[in-house]
Amino acid sequence: MAKPKFELRPPKGTVDLSPKEALTHKRIVERVVSVFEKHGAQPVETPSFELRDVLANKYGEEARLVYDLADQGGDICSLRYDLTVPFARYAAMNRVSRLRRYTVGRVYRRDNPSFRTGRLREFTQADFDICGSGVPMAADAEVLAMLDEILRGVRLAGGSVQHVIRISDRRVLAGLLLLAGVPSSLLGTICSTVDKADKLCWPELAAEFSAKGLVEEQLRGIKDFLEIKGSNEEILCYLEKKANEYKPEANNTSKRIEKIDIKETDNKELVIKSFVAAIEELKILLEYTKILQVETVRIDLSLARGLDYYTGIIIEASYEGLGIGSIAGGGRYDNLCSSISSHSVPCVGFSVGISRLMAVAAKEDIAGGIFVGSAHGLLISERLAILQMLWTAGFTAQTFPGRRANYKEQLETARRSNCGLAIFTGEDESSKGVLILYDIRTDRKEEIKQDDLLSAIKKYSI
Amino acid sequence: MAKPKFELRPPKGTVDLSPKEALTHKRIVERVVSVFEKHGAQPVETPSFELRDVLANKYGEEARLVYDLADQGGDICSLRYDLTVPFARYAAMNRVSRLRRYTVGRVYRRDNPSFRTGRLREFTQADFDICGSGVPMAADAEVLAMLDEILRGVRLAGGSVQHVIRISDRRVLAGLLLLAGVPSSLLGTICSTVDKADKLCWPELAAEFSAKGLVEEQLRGIKDFLEIKGSNEEILCYLEKKANEYKPEANNTSKRIEKIDIKETDNKELVIKSFVAAIEELKILLEYTKILQVETVRIDLSLARGLDYYTGIIIEASYEGLGIGSIAGGGRYDNLCSSISSHSVPCVGFSVGISRLMAVAAKEDIAGGIFVGSAHGLLISERLAILQMLWTAGFTAQTFPGRRANYKEQLETARRSNCGLAIFTGEDESSKGVLILYDIRTDRKEEIKQDDLLSAIKKYSI
Repeated sequence: MAKPKFELRPPKGTVDLSPKEALTHKRIVERVVSVFEKHGAQPVETPSFELRDVLANKYGEEARLVYDLADQGGDICSLRYDLTVPFARYAAMNRVSRLRRYTVGRVYRRDNPSFRTGRLREFTQADFDICGSGVPMAADAEVLAMLDEILRGVRLAGGSVQHVIRISDRRVLAGLLLLAGVPSSLLGTICSTVDKADKLCWPELAAEFSAKGLVEEQLRGIKDFLEIKGSNEEILCYLEKKANEYKPEANNTSKRIEKIDIKETDNKELVIKSFVAAIEELKILLEYTKILQVETVRIDLSLARGLDYYTGIIIEASYEGLGIGSIAGGGRYDNLCSSISSHSVPCVGFSVGISRLMAVAAKEDIAGGIFVGSAHGLLISERLAILQMLWTAGFTAQTFPGRRANYKEQLETARRSNCGLAIFTGEDESSKGVLILYDIRTDRKEEIKQDDLLSAIKKYSI
Repeated sequence: MAKPKFELRPPKGTVDLSPKEALTHKRIVERVVSVFEKHGAQPVETPSFELRDVLANKYGEEARLVYDLADQGGDICSLRYDLTVPFARYAAMNRVSRLRRYTVGRVYRRDNPSFRTGRLREFTQADFDICGSGVPMAADAEVLAMLDEILRGVRLAGGSVQHVIRISDRRVLAGLLLLAGVPSSLLGTICSTVDKADKLCWPELAAEFSAKGLVEEQLRGIKDFLEIKGSNEEILCYLEKKANEYKPEANNTSKRIEKIDIKETDNKELVIKSFVAAIEELKILLEYTKILQVETVRIDLSLARGLDYYTGIIIEASYEGLGIGSIAGGGRYDNLCSSISSHSVPCVGFSVGISRLMAVAAKEDIAGGIFVGSAHGLLISERLAILQMLWTAGFTAQTFPGRRANYKEQLETARRSNCGLAIFTGEDESSKGVLILYDIRTDRKEEIKQDDLLSAIKKYSI
């Protein structure tokens, strides 16, 4: 048969995971999920693709990265870009009013891939969200505590590295942009450019702002707050000073504004009110995270998050000095459900990029259990009988029934499979009713009676 | 903001999993994977989509069910139809010679969905395969034993139900078809029709055979073996009688033929030789499964399996009388790697349809852990301090910080989240340094000192 002419490779930007990698992936997911479950989260699953309409107008300038399915008749669909919008569709459909949910799944983005940093076109995210209205910042603080615990718990390949959880608030960013003179109609698109602040240098950013219609004075205003560095207290102090510039208008506020949709910020008064409210809430948030003993949260005014749907706190977490970009991101999205349905439920949560973590995590070792072989003669039936006994007793066990009973070859197979112990039968052994136990790690052998097998292997740690 | 005009639903043939369903799904996967791992299997992951060329010519008449990605520039891809062909691509690329692998993942088929039976367009499969050459039937028997253990282990909603693992062999089917007078050039397409034997009645099957060019006499020959029922011994006896019809030709066989590609059966002599060999091997297989204490294997000559790539044993498993079709299927595919590359490795394995199992499995209950509330006053900081203590000690715990401290409402939230225990603080309690422990299952309360919290909750089983 003629061999086909195509390349054997996974599609661009996607990867296979070898056993070691897949096991590492699995262990990371298990650790992340254990934190979710400790916080009472329940799993929810949605399909890998959605009706294309559901995904429309959710991802700002990143929408071009959405993978479409071909039109083969029937529903017009696209692969999910994240786990948040599909969940909002689920929450809207099922009129969810209170839920702590988690989802671990693959998402798809036609981005420029980089294998070193774990930026892939198909990658796994682990999402946690708290849905339901409540007092300001209690759920937001819990979410930060969980993210902190998750990032502390990852076994990194290079040993322990400090992580940092950068936070800001969409309401703060909108207020600062407005104070810098950005017209409220441009807030959405300018926000997308601010999101690149950690990747582009200032001249590049400035060029993009100019291309979007901003002038010199507005650029200076933006540069001013993008460059603010300092302790959380210092940044809060800066923000309060800024809020004072608004005070005459802000004092008109009769009630707190707790959410803002950056796409609907034509109402300047609303932006100002929510700016002032957000600063107060950031203070409460920092009190709560202190109670929850989270010490890695830093306010960062250059944080924007590219996605359209955030309305309050925004979050981005990374390991310092590893050069792989953000490991997790999230925030509050109070209007996402109501933007696609008549149902409204406020939500706050985050996504952990499992594929990003893979790029820095220590690799796990496969544990192969017990190898069953034959020293002389194939003795397949004898081997299967031994295996049957081991499996029934709950042991992990395997054989490799090659066509020859080559002792060395079998031992090599056992080693390669990371088996800790090998049990050999053989023609002589079988007739004498004995077995050879071979401790692969210590290279020691002993002969035991067949009938003593289960008790004999208990002293080995498999 | 105007509400969008589209329906809120998952795409046709796909489903969301609610927390209870998603938890059930997770538990089923965990149980299946634990059997895989007991047999020394290592995880391998491949992307959700493949280069379209990789999937071409693998699925016979089912190829029309493959989901294509839209051409958005770059690689031309399709969603994976199963986990077997992508794994063969992996094995070919990495020149795998020996591996026990498992993969759990979603696959995609544009089939007519049925929610009752769990036949979906996107569904989860759990695959196990043994790759590498070895003595005949040892790996095949192990695979059957694993499938038997998996099907025994599922907690079914309606209580215990007997399962059956139907087996046949592509070499046997090819031989029987040839004996019935089917021209060797038609074996592939006739095989696709035989695959429908459990869904269509004979007149429907006969019509399809006729449409494919078979005449009355050939139909009678096919009907003859399709209707054979009996014990494994009786069917083996029937097969040996049939083999005798070939004997003059079969006696020319100098060596055993162990694999056959149904697409390449122009060589009649080869078909006959492998037919005779397959019958001998079926006998060995049944000896081995007896040693492995598998009692649910039945030879079924009407079994065909629609996919093109099987070369030896074929497997299909189901629960009797549940009316949901097959739960698992598989077989030996010795030529799949070599059909796409210069690398060859024989493989045998099976897929478990997790979504099918979902349709019959008992639903799991969410365990919500400990609820932390406040009887009077919001006391968010106090609650967070209690939660922090519980989480650090490893307990599952949650609060719901509603805007009012309504005791009954909080208790209702705790119940709905399946929490077993509630801890209430309150303004009085806080000033006295005490907490109320409320056992939700027994409806009993007790007051404890704040400092005694961790020791006090240890007597409750959370």
